[in-house]
Amino acid sequence: MFTENYNGKNALITGGLGFIGSTLSIRLAELGAKVTVIDSLIPEYGGNLFNVEPVKDRIRINISDVRDRSSINYLVKGQDYLFNLAGTLSHIDSMRDPFTDLEINCVSQLRILEACREYNPGIKIVFAGTRGQYGRAQYLPVDEKHPLHSSDVNGINNNAGENYHLLYNEVYGIRACSLRLTNTYGPRHEMKHPRQGVLNWFIRQIIDGLVIYIYGSGSQIRDTNYVDDVVDAMLLAMMTEATNGEVFNLGGEPLSLVQFVEALIEVNGGGKYELVAFPGELKAIEIGDYIASYAKFTALTGWEPKVDLKEGLAKSLEYYRANGPNYWSRG
Amino acid sequence: MFTENYNGKNALITGGLGFIGSTLSIRLAELGAKVTVIDSLIPEYGGNLFNVEPVKDRIRINISDVRDRSSINYLVKGQDYLFNLAGTLSHIDSMRDPFTDLEINCVSQLRILEACREYNPGIKIVFAGTRGQYGRAQYLPVDEKHPLHSSDVNGINNNAGENYHLLYNEVYGIRACSLRLTNTYGPRHEMKHPRQGVLNWFIRQIIDGLVIYIYGSGSQIRDTNYVDDVVDAMLLAMMTEATNGEVFNLGGEPLSLVQFVEALIEVNGGGKYELVAFPGELKAIEIGDYIASYAKFTALTGWEPKVDLKEGLAKSLEYYRANGPNYWSRG
Repeated sequence: MFTENYNGKNALITGGLGFIGSTLSIRLAELGAKVTVIDSLIPEYGGNLFNVEPVKDRIRINISDVRDRSSINYLVKGQDYLFNLAGTLSHIDSMRDPFTDLEINCVSQLRILEACREYNPGIKIVFAGTRGQYGRAQYLPVDEKHPLHSSDVNGINNNAGENYHLLYNEVYGIRACSLRLTNTYGPRHEMKHPRQGVLNWFIRQIIDGLVIYIYGSGSQIRDTNYVDDVVDAMLLAMMTEATNGEVFNLGGEPLSLVQFVEALIEVNGGGKYELVAFPGELKAIEIGDYIASYAKFTALTGWEPKVDLKEGLAKSLEYYRANGPNYWSRG
Repeated sequence: MFTENYNGKNALITGGLGFIGSTLSIRLAELGAKVTVIDSLIPEYGGNLFNVEPVKDRIRINISDVRDRSSINYLVKGQDYLFNLAGTLSHIDSMRDPFTDLEINCVSQLRILEACREYNPGIKIVFAGTRGQYGRAQYLPVDEKHPLHSSDVNGINNNAGENYHLLYNEVYGIRACSLRLTNTYGPRHEMKHPRQGVLNWFIRQIIDGLVIYIYGSGSQIRDTNYVDDVVDAMLLAMMTEATNGEVFNLGGEPLSLVQFVEALIEVNGGGKYELVAFPGELKAIEIGDYIASYAKFTALTGWEPKVDLKEGLAKSLEYYRANGPNYWSRG
């Protein structure tokens, strides 16, 4: 099904050396697409050349920043698809340095859209949004009509980035949709620090044989998605014309952090965790429980998560055990 | 009522030489406040030194840009109140030059909030939002729960600017609220071009003895507010602690553009209008009818518009007839 839509097609992926972008790049290359990845390789943002090792000779790797106007203007030309995944996702970094978050998540999104408008208005774009756009859930599960009251600067900036896409779809006819991602885990994540996502950080602690520290009661619920399921969703969103101008939640298995960690310990065959108090600056932006309704996306595309938790955890542990030094150095 | 809240207090007004900012500055000076206005006097953005002529010796005028970090850091110190009105409001300019709109409406808002956080966290802020944040109305009247689907870049950026305020209120305890303004008219508006608001442009055409051109059928409905009523609302929002962290619509008399123009012609004792086709770039971002519900703000503060249309139009015509050359040169 995917092959006929992607074989021979030109696909551009911003943030293409990052966690989801690189997994998507590999998949697209395997489907026969002509893949160009853009990544700035800004330290600590998740880009890692090793991520695309399996396809490095089959894709075009362009190291540049999405804020770089002439680079983007050039690279969008002739592309059929743009998977627009560049952006920071750190809640706490966005509070500590709100201007950098704004530059990357607002300014760069406008740059990309202006480049498409001028040089390739026939392109289709899938934008990667985030559950952080909602802030604390006012009801569960959170559907796409839930108010957007972000509890950090990153969520506010991602809202703006997403809205630029919907606006350019509406006003200029540049086809675009947004998938609001939940907590995604799996191979190829940034593992040097926990600020891009805590689930993968837990996996590192287990591999390093360290005690996992969970903030608060550990009962806070997160939706979890294995990265391959998210990549499937992006491929489906891109090839479905009815997604244009629309926003969709992704979601998966709602679990408390303790449940996630206990499953991780079980799959690993050992490990320990402890509950510790929230650091103040994290407590202020903690969103409480989050469960997404992804019924809208399922109804339109048939997408459902396929990889269950234990399978996803086993694959993640296997990947990082084999490739750990490419992601972090052991103390 | 206002005097006891403002007499002797330090009030900072960004965009304080603009339409609403200058009207507010005059009012605050008359109430005995120690007023500092910040304005960049960027051509065509509405700032005009003549606007504060009646109080120019009683207020402190600081020409600087809200994007100028050290200027803002210095000026927020010691202030009791910040009326945060700086920003562009042009729908069409924001589409033609989205990056400047982003700089002014997103970046500068973060600069101001960061300055408050660092140098004056005890300040209270009233932010001026806009009906443009809603985009096309999905139902009428539009209340504060209406989804925010801006139909131009300016609305998206104003959403981000507003949300930064609510976030800093919540996370850092910097008291802030937002008033979403509708179409405001009256003395002291930018009159050199119609891009900051069409109602005042109609007033200029009448004074110049020109035919008023109304785009489309002229039946599109706009809420109208006379500027003095908006200034009252800002004073009330500032002195009411229960507004903190909240968003409120302002609104007034819903009128079709034709009704507004016919009233203007009647009050003026003459004039003509013609209906003409929408220019394409304006049609794409036209929002259709808009009527606000301002019941939430009325319930909390008792605010209601006091100046009726004919009175407001008479005052506006009188002001611009007397002071016209300070606002535009006759052809």
